[in-house]
Amino acid sequence: MPREFRYKRRVEFYETDQAGIVHFSWFYRYMEEAEHAMWREAGMSIASTEFHVGWPRVAASFEFFKPLRFEDEFEVRLRIEEISDKTIRYSCELMKDDAKLAAGTMKTACVTRAPGVPMKSTAIPADIAARLSVFKKED
Amino acid sequence: MPREFRYKRRVEFYETDQAGIVHFSWFYRYMEEAEHAMWREAGMSIASTEFHVGWPRVAASFEFFKPLRFEDEFEVRLRIEEISDKTIRYSCELMKDDAKLAAGTMKTACVTRAPGVPMKSTAIPADIAARLSVFKKED
Amino acid sequence: MPREFRYKRRVEFYETDQAGIVHFSWFYRYMEEAEHAMWREAGMSIASTEFHVGWPRVAASFEFFKPLRFEDEFEVRLRIEEISDKTIRYSCELMKDDAKLAAGTMKTACVTRAPGVPMKSTAIPADIAARLSVFKKED
Amino acid sequence: MPREFRYKRRVEFYETDQAGIVHFSWFYRYMEEAEHAMWREAGMSIASTEFHVGWPRVAASFEFFKPLRFEDEFEVRLRIEEISDKTIRYSCELMKDDAKLAAGTMKTACVTRAPGVPMKSTAIPADIAARLSVFKKED
Repeated sequence: MPREFRYKRRVEFYETDQAGIVHFSWFYRYMEEAEHAMWREAGMSIASTEFHVGWPRVAASFEFFKPLRFEDEFEVRLRIEEISDKTIRYSCELMKDDAKLAAGTMKTACVTRAPGVPMKSTAIPADIAARLSVFKKED
Repeated sequence: MPREFRYKRRVEFYETDQAGIVHFSWFYRYMEEAEHAMWREAGMSIASTEFHVGWPRVAASFEFFKPLRFEDEFEVRLRIEEISDKTIRYSCELMKDDAKLAAGTMKTACVTRAPGVPMKSTAIPADIAARLSVFKKED
Repeated sequence: MPREFRYKRRVEFYETDQAGIVHFSWFYRYMEEAEHAMWREAGMSIASTEFHVGWPRVAASFEFFKPLRFEDEFEVRLRIEEISDKTIRYSCELMKDDAKLAAGTMKTACVTRAPGVPMKSTAIPADIAARLSVFKKED
Repeated sequence: MPREFRYKRRVEFYETDQAGIVHFSWFYRYMEEAEHAMWREAGMSIASTEFHVGWPRVAASFEFFKPLRFEDEFEVRLRIEEISDKTIRYSCELMKDDAKLAAGTMKTACVTRAPGVPMKSTAIPADIAARLSVFKKED
């Protein structure tokens, strides 16, 4: 049974806008915070230089159901939908108590990373895929 | 023939991250900047209190094709895909010279806005729909 | 003996810039996060509408000694330097382990808050001053 | 007679907070935007790799007099107060029409920049100092 990764967070003041709610651009950052915390939970840093790879975004989306407000405590529930040869697809739900506030998806590519050289798609290192697989949905 | 709205912008330093490219969360803000500039072009402010309505996001997505870097000059080409009774759907392309960097969509709902009262979906004021229709794709 | 308030935080990816360090604008947000956490520790929300007041900034400054990097864990040590009739002055130090990374100050004014009415300087409610005084330096 | 550099800007929606005004952290970013535009006006990019130097902040401060609101058009008037051997000191005023909204200062150090090597204070390249001197206050 794969685990989903749960990341807790509180809304900061500068994340609100003059409509009195969290600006929608922050939800993508919350999803990324959860991703990086998931990698730490798997014993890795996404910015590690060990494998000389980087992880630019290929796509990201959110549907918004209810607003978030200053000092709200919420949870990002993040899962890995698929680890293919060169990409990882995540999905998440933002929960506040039992209410689903938003649902997001994110696809990220594994690319070579070297100073002064353009990024190029490359195979996900096997050790990374293995460590992340605990958060992957069953096929 | 409906016009698409073109919004020019230059990348700021604080929009980059340690990967040396614009953080993906900024693309959603660029799309919104273009939306608000489109409304100004149509003679309106999206934050006008005249109609007692607000415009929270229902959904937003991006596909990312090429990265943006510090001081890059780019253009958001924004169109209105649909104005329904209570929502507006936009789509956009981010262009740098002739290269398409990203493609985005955004759906926003018209809601009642009053201090201390929860937002509630409401009909788009006819005057707003009329003014925006110049940027709408033909049916 | 007045307590200083200690607020722990980890650096997020989107807080870094292409120089590979946290962009300096974030330090002001970290100082504010600590302020709001201090108010919660004192049993209050700085955004409470109970007293019909708001807290705009009068001044803020930072000296930067060492950089912060992605996933660094650090601590904001926040003190109240002075609570005058209508303003509060804070000072803080950002620490990573035993290294002082930065030193900041912030002055905030108490103003009346009502929809559609300009902000006007006003006396700090006695209950707020009393609750915060535990974090005030001795005279 | 030295010129001050004038940089025009409009407030974006995501720069406001739930108090209905621009969050104070943005003023530091506006000051930096003006700095980078000043360097471009002087024929340079502050991120140029030509001289293998970087420009981290040593200090930055603002005094805030009046708030900025969504879609306000304002101007940053930036001057160089001093170019010393290894640092540059700027000062600026934020103006909206004839009203002074805020006054800021910023000190930045010239440091060596090389992958994997700690930053170290170094002399400002003579060509950079010469190009910027047009914006320097008279002694």
